[in-house]
Amino acid sequence: MGITLKQAQTAVQAAHEKALEMGVKMNIAVVDAGANLVAFIRMDDAWLGSLDISIKKAKTARFFDMPTGAIGGLSQPGGPLFGIEHSNGGLISFPGGIPIKGDGGLVMGAIGVSGSTVEDDHAVAEAGQLAIEGKR
Amino acid sequence: MGITLKQAQTAVQAAHEKALEMGVKMNIAVVDAGANLVAFIRMDDAWLGSLDISIKKAKTARFFDMPTGAIGGLSQPGGPLFGIEHSNGGLISFPGGIPIKGDGGLVMGAIGVSGSTVEDDHAVAEAGQLAIEGKR
Amino acid sequence: MGITLKQAQTAVQAAHEKALEMGVKMNIAVVDAGANLVAFIRMDDAWLGSLDISIKKAKTARFFDMPTGAIGGLSQPGGPLFGIEHSNGGLISFPGGIPIKGDGGLVMGAIGVSGSTVEDDHAVAEAGQLAIEGKR
Amino acid sequence: MGITLKQAQTAVQAAHEKALEMGVKMNIAVVDAGANLVAFIRMDDAWLGSLDISIKKAKTARFFDMPTGAIGGLSQPGGPLFGIEHSNGGLISFPGGIPIKGDGGLVMGAIGVSGSTVEDDHAVAEAGQLAIEGKR
Repeated sequence: MGITLKQAQTAVQAAHEKALEMGVKMNIAVVDAGANLVAFIRMDDAWLGSLDISIKKAKTARFFDMPTGAIGGLSQPGGPLFGIEHSNGGLISFPGGIPIKGDGGLVMGAIGVSGSTVEDDHAVAEAGQLAIEGKR
Repeated sequence: MGITLKQAQTAVQAAHEKALEMGVKMNIAVVDAGANLVAFIRMDDAWLGSLDISIKKAKTARFFDMPTGAIGGLSQPGGPLFGIEHSNGGLISFPGGIPIKGDGGLVMGAIGVSGSTVEDDHAVAEAGQLAIEGKR
Repeated sequence: MGITLKQAQTAVQAAHEKALEMGVKMNIAVVDAGANLVAFIRMDDAWLGSLDISIKKAKTARFFDMPTGAIGGLSQPGGPLFGIEHSNGGLISFPGGIPIKGDGGLVMGAIGVSGSTVEDDHAVAEAGQLAIEGKR
Repeated sequence: MGITLKQAQTAVQAAHEKALEMGVKMNIAVVDAGANLVAFIRMDDAWLGSLDISIKKAKTARFFDMPTGAIGGLSQPGGPLFGIEHSNGGLISFPGGIPIKGDGGLVMGAIGVSGSTVEDDHAVAEAGQLAIEGKR
């Protein structure tokens, strides 16, 4: 099903280090190609409500193989995917979820981060993604 | 786990008295630091649909350690958190939920009120909050 | 819808006092004739998992107008109501939930208690019930 | 909120090492005092259905501050807690979930493991528990 535990832990650790460096408290989740959780951490005193959001961001990014913010661009009122968040037990369509690709460009999982601004969330998720994709 | 039952009951009673004084019929909920219910009352003839809303407001305020209305300001169409209400089994992002802080400023719980206008809901929740925070 | 907030609070307080007297830590819930929550308290350090159980016991007792333990007697393997717990979003069919009757014997609500043995739970619920029914 | 991320990761790692030593493929979850997830890993090729079970075991152990198997002993047909699994969004009442106590004996979280026999699940969970409790 794609990403290994070792890879997922590498992504989580890189994201964790980025969060510590930025001084933000994050929930960090990695799912595999089946959109099922592989690794997760919640930093001390991170927002409790971000636990579910981080997992939903990772799932959403894998469900559609695109960054979560891209879906949000399409799900605004009047947009083509308005209301898509009602599917799949609840999607999150703002930034912080990013697919992780393996050799050959196939999506093998995704990372979702929540706990600060959406810009911070995305930056921390990207650190996790690059720890894997940069090593291909 | 933060707020004690005695503190939660003090907050509920203060909010209840404020609601009686204002002539409004409220559902009043207090959760602890884990976002789990500690005390709840529904006033006679209060809106039945506000039962769930009051509890969700209290949880939402604790999930993100801010008043629920602040989240609603960010979750409008085009805003950075559009659609966040789909997380955590359903958030409520309009006013009426307020975190309750303990000594040292740590959030130890939250109060959620629903049954009238959002302005009234917030005023009643604030009465509950201040009954605890004013006694520090 | 039956029981008033004042009556519900009387029941909760009587149950709370009984629990303190017995040295047990309880979750105590009262619902009205519509099986909707009217008053709730969780004592400090009471089992967290008993929060949901106390509310489900109160609802179950009102759903069928009988003590929850009576339903459990019918829902055992081979019994006529085997599996009934799957309905209504989850029933609890062991003791600790008791209907509360008003003048004329009509059920006007129910009390549910959870946090100790089922015998203790039932005894504390009964203290709440009698605080109302004994005053008719 | 009890257990820290560092402690949770120590427990997960100890359980992971035990699982590798035993040659079993596990899902390992740690929750805090509020029964909210702090850390999670799923080993490569571990049963997918055990993901949810491991988290529910950790939550169940914290909900009632006892090993999950102890609840199962009481929830059998004819037992006092028959059907308790229907509460709290689904409990798991067979072995593999164990509370984790902090200084003074207070429960500060729990670990849940799923992926093999219940004996194996319990043994791996215990390795995680002892990595924390043995360091007090």
